Amino acid sequence: MKTKINLTLAVFLLSALTTMAQNLKSFTLEDLIPGGNNYFNCSIKNLYDVQWWGDRCIVPDAEEIKAVNPRNGKENLLFTVGEANRDFAAYTAVKLPRVFNLYGTTFPDPDRPIAVIRFPEYVVYYNFEFRHVDHVIALGKGAANIDLAPGGGAAAYTVGDCLYVSRTAKAADIRSLSPEFANPATAPQDHDLVYGQAVHRNEFGIMKGTFWSPKGNRLAYYRMNQSMVTDYPQVNIETRIATMEPDKYPMAGMTSHKVTVGVYDLATGKSVDLEAGDPTDRYFTNVSWSPDEQKVYVIELNRDQNYAQLVRYDAATGHREAVIYEEMHPKYVEPQQPLTFLPWDDSKFIYQSQRDGYNHLYLFDLDTPVTPEVKQADGGGTCKETVKVTPLTEGEWLVQSILGFNEKKKEVYIASTEVSPMQTNVYAVNVKNGQRRAIGNSEGVHAARLSASGNYLIDNYSTPDVPRRIDLIATAGNKVTKTLFTADDPWKGFNVPEIETGTIKAADGETDLYYRLIKPVNFDPAKKYPAIIYVYGGPHAQMLQNNFRYAARGWDIYMAQLGYVMLTIDNRGSSNRGLAFENCTFRQLGTEEMKDQMKGVELLKSLSYVDADRLGVHGWSFGGFMTTNLMLTHPDVFKVAVAGGPVIDWKYYEVMYGERYMDTPEANPEGYKNADLKQKAGNLKGRLELIIGGNDPTCVPQHTLSFIRACIDAGTHPDLFIYPGQGHNMVGRDRVHLHEHITRYFEDHLK
Amino acid sequence: MKTKINLTLAVFLLSALTTMAQNLKSFTLEDLIPGGNNYFNCSIKNLYDVQWWGDRCIVPDAEEIKAVNPRNGKENLLFTVGEANRDFAAYTAVKLPRVFNLYGTTFPDPDRPIAVIRFPEYVVYYNFEFRHVDHVIALGKGAANIDLAPGGGAAAYTVGDCLYVSRTAKAADIRSLSPEFANPATAPQDHDLVYGQAVHRNEFGIMKGTFWSPKGNRLAYYRMNQSMVTDYPQVNIETRIATMEPDKYPMAGMTSHKVTVGVYDLATGKSVDLEAGDPTDRYFTNVSWSPDEQKVYVIELNRDQNYAQLVRYDAATGHREAVIYEEMHPKYVEPQQPLTFLPWDDSKFIYQSQRDGYNHLYLFDLDTPVTPEVKQADGGGTCKETVKVTPLTEGEWLVQSILGFNEKKKEVYIASTEVSPMQTNVYAVNVKNGQRRAIGNSEGVHAARLSASGNYLIDNYSTPDVPRRIDLIATAGNKVTKTLFTADDPWKGFNVPEIETGTIKAADGETDLYYRLIKPVNFDPAKKYPAIIYVYGGPHAQMLQNNFRYAARGWDIYMAQLGYVMLTIDNRGSSNRGLAFENCTFRQLGTEEMKDQMKGVELLKSLSYVDADRLGVHGWSFGGFMTTNLMLTHPDVFKVAVAGGPVIDWKYYEVMYGERYMDTPEANPEGYKNADLKQKAGNLKGRLELIIGGNDPTCVPQHTLSFIRACIDAGTHPDLFIYPGQGHNMVGRDRVHLHEHITRYFEDHLK
Repeated sequence: MKTKINLTLAVFLLSALTTMAQNLKSFTLEDLIPGGNNYFNCSIKNLYDVQWWGDRCIVPDAEEIKAVNPRNGKENLLFTVGEANRDFAAYTAVKLPRVFNLYGTTFPDPDRPIAVIRFPEYVVYYNFEFRHVDHVIALGKGAANIDLAPGGGAAAYTVGDCLYVSRTAKAADIRSLSPEFANPATAPQDHDLVYGQAVHRNEFGIMKGTFWSPKGNRLAYYRMNQSMVTDYPQVNIETRIATMEPDKYPMAGMTSHKVTVGVYDLATGKSVDLEAGDPTDRYFTNVSWSPDEQKVYVIELNRDQNYAQLVRYDAATGHREAVIYEEMHPKYVEPQQPLTFLPWDDSKFIYQSQRDGYNHLYLFDLDTPVTPEVKQADGGGTCKETVKVTPLTEGEWLVQSILGFNEKKKEVYIASTEVSPMQTNVYAVNVKNGQRRAIGNSEGVHAARLSASGNYLIDNYSTPDVPRRIDLIATAGNKVTKTLFTADDPWKGFNVPEIETGTIKAADGETDLYYRLIKPVNFDPAKKYPAIIYVYGGPHAQMLQNNFRYAARGWDIYMAQLGYVMLTIDNRGSSNRGLAFENCTFRQLGTEEMKDQMKGVELLKSLSYVDADRLGVHGWSFGGFMTTNLMLTHPDVFKVAVAGGPVIDWKYYEVMYGERYMDTPEANPEGYKNADLKQKAGNLKGRLELIIGGNDPTCVPQHTLSFIRACIDAGTHPDLFIYPGQGHNMVGRDRVHLHEHITRYFEDHLK
Repeated sequence: MKTKINLTLAVFLLSALTTMAQNLKSFTLEDLIPGGNNYFNCSIKNLYDVQWWGDRCIVPDAEEIKAVNPRNGKENLLFTVGEANRDFAAYTAVKLPRVFNLYGTTFPDPDRPIAVIRFPEYVVYYNFEFRHVDHVIALGKGAANIDLAPGGGAAAYTVGDCLYVSRTAKAADIRSLSPEFANPATAPQDHDLVYGQAVHRNEFGIMKGTFWSPKGNRLAYYRMNQSMVTDYPQVNIETRIATMEPDKYPMAGMTSHKVTVGVYDLATGKSVDLEAGDPTDRYFTNVSWSPDEQKVYVIELNRDQNYAQLVRYDAATGHREAVIYEEMHPKYVEPQQPLTFLPWDDSKFIYQSQRDGYNHLYLFDLDTPVTPEVKQADGGGTCKETVKVTPLTEGEWLVQSILGFNEKKKEVYIASTEVSPMQTNVYAVNVKNGQRRAIGNSEGVHAARLSASGNYLIDNYSTPDVPRRIDLIATAGNKVTKTLFTADDPWKGFNVPEIETGTIKAADGETDLYYRLIKPVNFDPAKKYPAIIYVYGGPHAQMLQNNFRYAARGWDIYMAQLGYVMLTIDNRGSSNRGLAFENCTFRQLGTEEMKDQMKGVELLKSLSYVDADRLGVHGWSFGGFMTTNLMLTHPDVFKVAVAGGPVIDWKYYEVMYGERYMDTPEANPEGYKNADLKQKAGNLKGRLELIIGGNDPTCVPQHTLSFIRACIDAGTHPDLFIYPGQGHNMVGRDRVHLHEHITRYFEDHLK
């Protein structure tokens, strides 16, 4: 490949099938797009619900549950669906439903032969050794967000906006933790008050609203008052006469909701609120428990999101005891992981922080107080420690997750980007000295589960050449003891285009950016092809990794089949590259990101086989913002663009994500104006189609409709399509229709 | 023109400019579309507010008011704007604003030198002979629907949903006729109760909600309770956070509003309600007064709209006195005109009815009771008369309006289609013997105003060759006494395409349908041109008449310039052709209309210069329904279609219009299903774009969005565009943008 761009990574040539193409099948969108009628067959296969029960690997299937001994790979049958049904029928306290298959069965207790089987209204703890139902917990009708207590003594769940705790098979024993809803006549309406669900719009790593203490005796939970938040008026057109379905949506700069954290004590049946003070304009994140269940830790942020405090509360009284740690940054601080206490020492926990520029592990020793002082951190901010803090990991790579511990070896297991930002590999880190050793192979992208002892790993991974493999690994010798599963190439027999990756320099002239380039099938270097950039470009996402075929998207493959060159670049601002790489976009979303994407245009223009007069761009959500912005900022470069669910004006986006990166409209008027695509509506020259879900609750329709309005006022002519009833992303069959529609637009105007 | 179609009307060849085309200008949409920056210059000019003051013709301009003597055409100056301002300044009761121009000045009293000049908060009665302000009537802030009482003693107007009557210059004297709104705390919300405005969604000829008695002593007014009507959830995206703006919209088959008629007596200051009984599912239309102000007449319809009663009420008590007349029809009865009493005989009035198949005049003699009996009428229905009724006009043509009377000659003046369904001409009808004589010339389309005596006519007309002329005519001799205005051809110097008209046979094989065919500019019969049908096709409208250039639409002209053949046909179901022509569509809207439009396709296919593989169709509202329906019903005939503001499913349309033509969804499930275009969504083959105003209150967005949803579900691919903030029709600059957009769609896909 002749380009003027410095290619720092080898170009991987995955397939050179041109000469044999005549024997190969062509893809349809039904093969490549989720929702398509052949999509499953064309997807990489997996084993579902593979998990640990202590140190035994459980492989559920529909009919039976087998345990694999990871030391020697030997299997033994634990129980069958018939046995479970026989034993369920013998249970008399309540009539249990029939089990139809065993997928979804879990084994939460490493030391007891208990399988947990869930029904809509019951959670059954089945002792498969003694062949009887150990106990049952009833759930209310419509139960959601079901969270089972460690030890199996209780379940927390929500129905509507209310939170419940159940401990027995009897519905009458269920306790409500939402006193305001007791009287239907005065109950809050319209989601004014929401209990036990994720808050702060799922930012700050928040994915749920209930947090059981380690032994299951106490439950911390969120309570969100959003009565003061303005409704966004969504409309349901599927009713006889269209109806309004208001959705609480706090927009950047506007009044936000108020969150409190309650703690329910199973022994007393009473709740206390953490005494956090006035919750106005504050974020309560990463709720964590001390091992002894006496303390609750919360990482608290101010609305500006530039000041985080790790606060300790007394779980029994809610009393605010101490601020353990503080972190400040002139741009933003973004805690995303709760505390992880060492299993062998209740006085020490691991805190994850980007304070030194990359997410790393810091060991906090509660038993060793230090004199607090504000220290400069390598990431450009400051921090203040009140206890001794020891960095466990460091370097220009980042920890992606903690997998668990090996108590005997005093190791913590992590997944990280140490090998490459394009990879996820597993390491054991010695907690005493920080020394690391690799577990599993050094290639590709690994999703791993550590056994209870830490002696074994289920390693589910793929590489550019390996669709998927699931190995059992003995962590001591880093040896594969058994391969549980090997997936076939699901695109075998198809005419798969060439997929290359490499790096180019970012617009800063220094940073390497990874790209993925897909060439048209039956590639002829003498031809001139149109090219399309598929872009996301926003924080918390990475479009390419070293997994199978570099995570090439189905639609990209399809377009390559139709004769397009497809390029994707993870620009500055995207994930897995560290803090500075991400936060260079602060208060100016789109600006640096676009500069980097234009480096991708330079790459395309350097390719002899790309027709520079036929460049297109497509993206969704933040990628829709990027797409629209690129089309309007570089109207002579791009001829055709399709922007899906785009952000058009950050002031219509929500408080938590929006203000983290942009501050408020009041504090950053210039930044908001520069990023407001309505201001550029008059620049449109080529063809731009905007596509949205008619009820998008994330990028609300006001974005795209106000942009259309601005274009009309400016005398320019975008196109528009709406998927009525859909949200931020098209799901089901609509996703196939969507890609037919997008394809047609490029075929109409770029071909 | 060689066609197999029998052409019964001569083909009018308006211009044969091919050879000189090179010297002529081309149109832009700015020239041809309302809202375009050169539209005014390209529009036919007019004289505004020309009117009668008794028998003197008033010609207002900005600076001065002149009266023209219609006998000899002599002008004399009545007053200037400077004089008015000088005299207004001398008025001391209130401080009057400055008059900036005299357009809009009216002269309601034939016998007194009173000019009425309106300001937002005052109505000034100016005596221009004695040069002083005669009196002033104050209006409340935001006054709308201002209705001045005959005699000048009072004004009725609305502010918001309330009705007021004012009689003096003092705001303190204003009386509210809306008692429910007196207490702001308990006042109705959200248009639950509306006073003094048009009701029944402006059907049945209803254009206002206040009706002064002939001498101005009493006011009849509508009061509409729509608290039981479901809101349609319109969304305003122009606010900081989008807001819901609910709109009461009674959909076919659903609960409708309830209307009552009140009568306010200026002398007593009290209101009574007409004792009409339960207003549920009833229409109160065409409120009329007896000349002595003692009686109110209302034409009342049942919800089925197949039974009309002319009911007389006592104005002082509201007492229901008698049913004077009844009309029934198996399809529908549609009264659209109030009673017109003879000026010389208070016992006789003219009633307009289609009962014999065409709208004609019937003279009712209240002094001659007859024994009521149900009689068959020629239009297919029945009627029941309680007084002597004498047909004044009859024949296979229809009366379009009553212009006034000549008391001395006992003549009533009408506009009618007697010459041709393509024309509107004026006739004097002798009330004693029904004899008619034509007034004005026999060509074209006339809009006429009769003087107080009936001796003179202001005749504003155009013909295919005459853009506009305004003549003063002496009705006695049918002689033009003065030509007030002659408009130039506003398209002089432009390369105007050839415009032809003719007739073809409807699908019934019998009925003549009028069409207008526009050939591409610089027409070359050897070429093959794409062709587009512009269609409306619904009741109460006619797309072509014998006015200037056969009412050719600006966009049609533009498309002819781009090389398209443009065809428009007024199918069965459209107006000015009589009852049977219209009501053949009953309970099956679209079916017969489409058959007739397909006759237009036959015409196009018979033309050697039309490329039958490139046929398009475009229409708005009912025309959007027709367009979408044609595209889906004849997917192999039409390649490209643009449907604006379409009806998709009549059950989403409103009660009054919808049920007249379709009955309720419950009563006519088969008809609704056949006309439901969602059922045909899977038929789409070519390119169909739907365009709507984002806040269309007439064809609510549910129509188009539910169709888009149906197409997605059926796997077909329409296109969509929305004009956010616009209603049923695009107005202002957006109208130009719209036609750029429509044009681009045809250029993209049909060229």
